[in-house]
Amino acid sequence: MNYFAGIDLGGTFIKGGIVDENGNILIKDQVSTGRERPYQDIAADMAALILDLAKRANIAVSDLKAAGIGSPGTVDSKRGVIIYTNNLNWKKVPLADEVRKHLGVPVFVTNDANAAAVGESFAGAAKKYPSSIFVTLGTGVGGGIVIDGVLFEGNRSAGAEIGHTVIRVGGEKCTCGRKGCFEAYASATALIRQTKRAMEKDRESALWKICPDIDKVNGKTAFDGAAAGDKTAEKVVKNYITYLAEGIANLANIFRPNAIVLGGGVCAQGDTLLVPLRKKVNRMLYGGTKYAPVELLVATLGNDAGLVGAAHFAQQRI
Amino acid sequence: MNYFAGIDLGGTFIKGGIVDENGNILIKDQVSTGRERPYQDIAADMAALILDLAKRANIAVSDLKAAGIGSPGTVDSKRGVIIYTNNLNWKKVPLADEVRKHLGVPVFVTNDANAAAVGESFAGAAKKYPSSIFVTLGTGVGGGIVIDGVLFEGNRSAGAEIGHTVIRVGGEKCTCGRKGCFEAYASATALIRQTKRAMEKDRESALWKICPDIDKVNGKTAFDGAAAGDKTAEKVVKNYITYLAEGIANLANIFRPNAIVLGGGVCAQGDTLLVPLRKKVNRMLYGGTKYAPVELLVATLGNDAGLVGAAHFAQQRI
Repeated sequence: MNYFAGIDLGGTFIKGGIVDENGNILIKDQVSTGRERPYQDIAADMAALILDLAKRANIAVSDLKAAGIGSPGTVDSKRGVIIYTNNLNWKKVPLADEVRKHLGVPVFVTNDANAAAVGESFAGAAKKYPSSIFVTLGTGVGGGIVIDGVLFEGNRSAGAEIGHTVIRVGGEKCTCGRKGCFEAYASATALIRQTKRAMEKDRESALWKICPDIDKVNGKTAFDGAAAGDKTAEKVVKNYITYLAEGIANLANIFRPNAIVLGGGVCAQGDTLLVPLRKKVNRMLYGGTKYAPVELLVATLGNDAGLVGAAHFAQQRI
Repeated sequence: MNYFAGIDLGGTFIKGGIVDENGNILIKDQVSTGRERPYQDIAADMAALILDLAKRANIAVSDLKAAGIGSPGTVDSKRGVIIYTNNLNWKKVPLADEVRKHLGVPVFVTNDANAAAVGESFAGAAKKYPSSIFVTLGTGVGGGIVIDGVLFEGNRSAGAEIGHTVIRVGGEKCTCGRKGCFEAYASATALIRQTKRAMEKDRESALWKICPDIDKVNGKTAFDGAAAGDKTAEKVVKNYITYLAEGIANLANIFRPNAIVLGGGVCAQGDTLLVPLRKKVNRMLYGGTKYAPVELLVATLGNDAGLVGAAHFAQQRI
């Protein structure tokens, strides 16, 4: 049997796992990143975690064929170099080479959202479908594009920045410098901003009962208000879903994937989010839904998506 | 030597040519489409045109390895079927099979904008670059996506509808039913609409001297007015270029291609269009222009792009 190591590198934890050829996790664990340390130390810990896991799972190192890493930031996956990540304050770090030194097997690196996209495509929500796009709604809007089972990254892996496509020219300011990005309307951060604004405009809204301290508004607040029948909250939810639908339909019309997979906390809303979202997106599909339908799904691998995806990314590269 | 037939099927003319392996046209000609006729007759004429061209160029039919067709509408390129085109009023027409009957070589079909994208990528403006996106600014905004030399069409060839991605939620009505599509702001039709509106608002504008009959406004009018120093015209041009830049930057951030190639009449403006457009797009590129630059170019093959691209599409498929 061939096994692959998957590593999900974060600002707080290094998550590692041993994954089989079918995307099943045999064993997983995590250690602190200690991000203030030199990258060489972090790389050594990544390798040590994998070697420890292999030992604990009784897997011979010779059966470990390769390792994949999902890293934050801009990653040149061809050369295994982290070009830039503000999470770890890294610039041009040759991470693949450094980990390989300790691990002795080929090491491949991709962006963390890309790794999650590969995970959901290979072993998660989209595993029945050759082509899928993963859209994660968190602090920002990240994503990954899988075409016929293979990750699409663009020139120098700099593509797939789906959060930074403008859906409203001249609109809401985005962290990237542009105005009106998809991320500025559909991220959890954006939903929170939209909820707060609505609360400030409507002091009578039930949202103030659900969350008396406006600084504690989160991505659930507006949905809770809508569930309680508050009109202001309903409007926030409706607008949010419209923006999300517009961005998703744009991706659908460009890529016409078999499926679009949503990740992030807001997906916990389940059908409250998905049913109206599907309806809106389907109305926006160019040429309609009959000829080439696009499924709208919720991610199923949760926090394991990056780890499983990184392992499969390595499996595909060797 | 291997040769390939390229056919550009339009509502008025069937353009055909014999193309070598390097994308050079040996001979080309055109015949009337006669679009009111049964598709079988049109297919027979397409084959007859190619056989006639081969004869005139002294090419043995045995050296003709395949034929490619660029067709308007939605095309299932895998099966060689035109799913729907309003230009010819066709539904589910098995065009590849029908042409093959007469021609005796493998026949492949793709959408006309896709064929042009392949042409510009293989032998035109983007021939130095592995990945490019072709954006044509005409009645609508069409396009084609070439990744590492291969056309990307999406599931059932229904993707690459770049004109039907919303850049302004709730904005200008589009022919597709959505509001705010890239096409509704960046097509020649949109530019004409923007020019007319500006003229109606400003009866003193020099645009009225350039084009006294508002029904005769075309894609050049606003540029002519701007060149004459008319403020209203300058504003129209500036806004148009902004919209165009936003849509192009969206594509750049998603695909991070090596180049984006522009086609359509408005490109005749040359640097008047390109210089400010490049500046704007470069400012919108995620992560800046240094790491993974995107060249902005004007199409060079003109009306031959579809023919050359269709031939190369066939060359790649056999």
